[in-house]
Amino acid sequence: MPDLRLVPKPELDRLRSADVDQDARLALLADVCRLNALVAVKRAGSGHLGSTFSALDVVAHLLFDELDVAERGFDDPDRDVFFSSKGHDVPGLYAALFALGVVSRERLLRLRRLGGLDGHPDVGVPGIEASSGSLGMGISKGRGIALAKRQLGRDGRVVVMTGDGELQEGQNWEALQSAAHDRLGGLWVVVDRNEVQSDKRTEEIVALGDLEAKLRAFGWDVETVDGHDHAVLRSAFGSFRDGGDAPKALIAETVKGKGVSFMEHPRALADGGGTYRWHAGAPPDEAFARAVAELEARLAERCAAVGVEPPALEPVEPEAPVCGLEGEPESGAGARAKQRVTEEYVVEAYGAALLELGAACGALVVLDADLASDCRTRPFELAYPDRFVQCGIAEQDMVSTAAGMARHGLLPVVNSFASFLASRANEQIYNQASEGSKVVYALHYAGLIPAGPGKSHQSVRDISLLAALPNVTIVQPGSWDETQGLLRWAVEHADESVALRLAIGPSPRRLELPGEGPAIGRGSVLRDGGDAVLISYGPVMLHEALLAAEELAEGGELSVRVMAMPWLNRFDTEWLAAEVAPFDDVFVLDDHAPVGGLGDGLRAALPGGAVTVFGVEGWPACGTPDEALRFHGLDGASLAARIGRHAGRRAGRAGSPAVR
Amino acid sequence: MPDLRLVPKPELDRLRSADVDQDARLALLADVCRLNALVAVKRAGSGHLGSTFSALDVVAHLLFDELDVAERGFDDPDRDVFFSSKGHDVPGLYAALFALGVVSRERLLRLRRLGGLDGHPDVGVPGIEASSGSLGMGISKGRGIALAKRQLGRDGRVVVMTGDGELQEGQNWEALQSAAHDRLGGLWVVVDRNEVQSDKRTEEIVALGDLEAKLRAFGWDVETVDGHDHAVLRSAFGSFRDGGDAPKALIAETVKGKGVSFMEHPRALADGGGTYRWHAGAPPDEAFARAVAELEARLAERCAAVGVEPPALEPVEPEAPVCGLEGEPESGAGARAKQRVTEEYVVEAYGAALLELGAACGALVVLDADLASDCRTRPFELAYPDRFVQCGIAEQDMVSTAAGMARHGLLPVVNSFASFLASRANEQIYNQASEGSKVVYALHYAGLIPAGPGKSHQSVRDISLLAALPNVTIVQPGSWDETQGLLRWAVEHADESVALRLAIGPSPRRLELPGEGPAIGRGSVLRDGGDAVLISYGPVMLHEALLAAEELAEGGELSVRVMAMPWLNRFDTEWLAAEVAPFDDVFVLDDHAPVGGLGDGLRAALPGGAVTVFGVEGWPACGTPDEALRFHGLDGASLAARIGRHAGRRAGRAGSPAVR
Repeated sequence: MPDLRLVPKPELDRLRSADVDQDARLALLADVCRLNALVAVKRAGSGHLGSTFSALDVVAHLLFDELDVAERGFDDPDRDVFFSSKGHDVPGLYAALFALGVVSRERLLRLRRLGGLDGHPDVGVPGIEASSGSLGMGISKGRGIALAKRQLGRDGRVVVMTGDGELQEGQNWEALQSAAHDRLGGLWVVVDRNEVQSDKRTEEIVALGDLEAKLRAFGWDVETVDGHDHAVLRSAFGSFRDGGDAPKALIAETVKGKGVSFMEHPRALADGGGTYRWHAGAPPDEAFARAVAELEARLAERCAAVGVEPPALEPVEPEAPVCGLEGEPESGAGARAKQRVTEEYVVEAYGAALLELGAACGALVVLDADLASDCRTRPFELAYPDRFVQCGIAEQDMVSTAAGMARHGLLPVVNSFASFLASRANEQIYNQASEGSKVVYALHYAGLIPAGPGKSHQSVRDISLLAALPNVTIVQPGSWDETQGLLRWAVEHADESVALRLAIGPSPRRLELPGEGPAIGRGSVLRDGGDAVLISYGPVMLHEALLAAEELAEGGELSVRVMAMPWLNRFDTEWLAAEVAPFDDVFVLDDHAPVGGLGDGLRAALPGGAVTVFGVEGWPACGTPDEALRFHGLDGASLAARIGRHAGRRAGRAGSPAVR
Repeated sequence: MPDLRLVPKPELDRLRSADVDQDARLALLADVCRLNALVAVKRAGSGHLGSTFSALDVVAHLLFDELDVAERGFDDPDRDVFFSSKGHDVPGLYAALFALGVVSRERLLRLRRLGGLDGHPDVGVPGIEASSGSLGMGISKGRGIALAKRQLGRDGRVVVMTGDGELQEGQNWEALQSAAHDRLGGLWVVVDRNEVQSDKRTEEIVALGDLEAKLRAFGWDVETVDGHDHAVLRSAFGSFRDGGDAPKALIAETVKGKGVSFMEHPRALADGGGTYRWHAGAPPDEAFARAVAELEARLAERCAAVGVEPPALEPVEPEAPVCGLEGEPESGAGARAKQRVTEEYVVEAYGAALLELGAACGALVVLDADLASDCRTRPFELAYPDRFVQCGIAEQDMVSTAAGMARHGLLPVVNSFASFLASRANEQIYNQASEGSKVVYALHYAGLIPAGPGKSHQSVRDISLLAALPNVTIVQPGSWDETQGLLRWAVEHADESVALRLAIGPSPRRLELPGEGPAIGRGSVLRDGGDAVLISYGPVMLHEALLAAEELAEGGELSVRVMAMPWLNRFDTEWLAAEVAPFDDVFVLDDHAPVGGLGDGLRAALPGGAVTVFGVEGWPACGTPDEALRFHGLDGASLAARIGRHAGRRAGRAGSPAVR
């Protein structure tokens, strides 16, 4: 990590109050926020810079000038309300809130860390008006806020920032329709029209076409302006203020990556050979240094032009270690957890197997909702462009499209993040499954980890969302081989739809698990033990389970058998009963809420068995993997302690017969 | 039930092959289908006539003339594919399929009956190309089918019928966008623009506005025609056939209720004082007779005009009794089940309590997704129009609108059918709950019953879809008093969001259950017994549980305690453990799939307890309440037998200790 320097609050105050042209000041403040957001993202190791930079002039214009919330405060019911529906731009919003004194310096430097700033907007953070990150809900929420203001006779406008790719989500069009019907003239939508979604052009993914015509047809007043020109922004917002009772949409034509030459569209897209690489993730050190240099130079230039001193930057204290929580143990499971990285990504195993299966089966088609890089379907797209169906950010349309295909000769493999696919398209999956056709659902980034993006992206309900479907098998592999084996089984052998949960990776350790020819409803033993059995799945939790068993063995406390169970709702009950028969205590470690996961399934499959479930209690915590696991008591050390306590209680009931 | 007469297949064949003007023949056939659909609906006791009648000219034109599927057959992969996305018009489609010989006479006369024709389209029925009834999925499916045809080099157009109110669902706009992007010229959408949705004008609920402009802005070729004029339909479809690679939309301007004067819009709307009463349900005898007379007279007129004999009608054999399955017992639980009606509707208790609570709390707002009559929110709408928020058929927008309101001073009560609300808006509910605000979700028509509409409307997964949310309490009352008590608790006392499941009614018996001051996590004893305990909830299943206990007591087999447990995911575990302590066998009767319902929750709350769950296994069956309950083995007699068998097995294990 290079040395980081940010523009401190007093310097921001000086610039905000400088007696200079207001548009020049806003442009300057936007660039300061760019720099501070860049520092926060670099420190966090992740964040969405392209979208942050495209939106920042509008954000700065609204928060520092157009809206009254900075003066009124975020608790005033008559305040103007502003929030971002897309949420990717939140590092820039945090930087602006830092400038307003709403977000502290300490917190700005804990982006995507436990107790810091969530990776996507969350109302638990000061100044955040709406939780988002799952796309397409913002205009509806804005409608609700505007209706509440009307009902309660409160003042204040409601301004919602959306992405352009985000407009592929159908909920936007529901809300555009209803808000126009309600004549909510105080509801404004700003579309950050940066022309690039996740990593390709919006017009290439699913074209928006004539957006102005669409919005007008939906009953909105529309203006299109340069979203980096504060004079035209001022004029547009002025005309909105004077407008009638139709809701207002501003199409802000912006540049993705604005402010850092090599992150700007279209240059960045050309540099990336057709994909935009600065959508998510922190830049590597060299690129970071160049970006900082550019931004600092521009700040100096802008300051010189208006005759103020450029801001003095303040060094940022070096980052605490990743596992740097208080009382971090230097041995045992805690220390082992630090070595939590291999080069294995199960999702890469998935992508590679998909390519092979695609070669063997001409009916196999891959559907994507604009996450081809993350879901590792890009190689399939390049190899079989005719069998790669881009659906844009529209999970419901994707699933029902797959349903249509599945009844007409194709085998669709549908991809998105588990958090979106299992919930946003839940009724569509029900409908498809009820038709008795076969679709493979790849649920990416399932489970507590990654925890950095925050709860909108953490999928700890997806098993519960699908388990009551009579004919959908849910599995999660824990290794490269098991991933390929289960995908092959799903494509070539399963006679019903399959939901394949996949961890983001990298795997914290390489596990020896069955590959080809998985036995339906059966798991395998990863480590033997005689005192209790701990059952889990997926590379993240199996690693923690092994850590717990190792810790308990080292301490001479308990000998715990660790079993991998990739089948999450299909059980060979005879096999299962025999496997757990020797044990008084059956523990299940769910990478899921404690309700509706593997634990509940095993309780049903083991009638009368005493099954103790460790799962993600409450809302999933945002933070590093270790922070989130420890917060939920699901890291190896915490699990060892929990299992030990349980065994202690049992021992305390001296002479009591086995409860099972 | 009056005597029913339909136009038999030979008469339909004669009319189809008559050598007359083809447009006159199509108009005649459409009216014949209207008559046969009316008879089927009258016999079923339910069905959607308004929408059936508005769509029937288009349906007849497509199936009898424009498309090739009648000649090619429904198994030919190169066939034209036609289906209805809205699905309400399916009685007319069945009548047309009957005319084609695809649906048998026997089956036409078993609309909404077990083994007959589902109340909404289901691919299990011959000639039904897509399961629908849950709105907004059809264009996406059509896109998938068109893409499959393109990919596999198959012939055939894909024609999707949608409603106009249905276009409020956002998924349509996702699909319109993506299909245009894909240049699917062979995908046609026909909008049945009958101007009335459930029971009010579309422009009053959520205005579609200039639909043609919207569809054009989304990249579709559009024509608007009189949807009852076969000459203009022919011409429009002809121009579509000759068109380019843009997908095509036909706005068919139709009359809801077309063909029966007093069902036609706008007259019917005026007669109904502003609401349209022929959307759903069978007409009463007198109205039925008038409708038949009108249709018969028109048939005679049309036949005379083209010089053919009017069709001879064939009497329909009288209907079998409602419980008329083979081997129907004349005594015991079966006989008692026939008396399954009181005048209690828990949903009316809900509507009345809502009105009272609204008077007491000015912050209470009611949100509706165009189901105000069914959800009994109409009285609230009339009393507090400013606090009644119409969202149209757009559950996602409704929930996020409520989320916005809840953070800005209002207490939203959100209404829709459980099947739609819990699944279609699942991610929006997650997002709202994650903000920590409070919303009351009223999940109407929850559970297996009503079974007539079919699986799109039967909600047997909603508990599982919400139970993993950390801060949503799920309850289902079993009586009038309990409904009012729980709603009052939800509105006035709950400190988190509440999901209130409500049965359609009428209640099969009146139950004495606690009203005011419900005790969180505790149930009550409805009938005492010493051999086993059976726990359930809601008026439907509690009645069956009592029937089972009565039957087992009568037979002297077992004495079963029946407990009502309205809390579906909150348990007072101490109380619970004490309550079930005397029993070796704990049975749970879930009005839900056996996965993710109350049973799973109780297993977790009773560690080591032997809990046997009876739930809705597989896909919920379509039929009368008795048919569906019996099919799933959840009627009182079946439950008695299942419990008896279980006890017998236990007794067979002579001397074995209690497993608990």
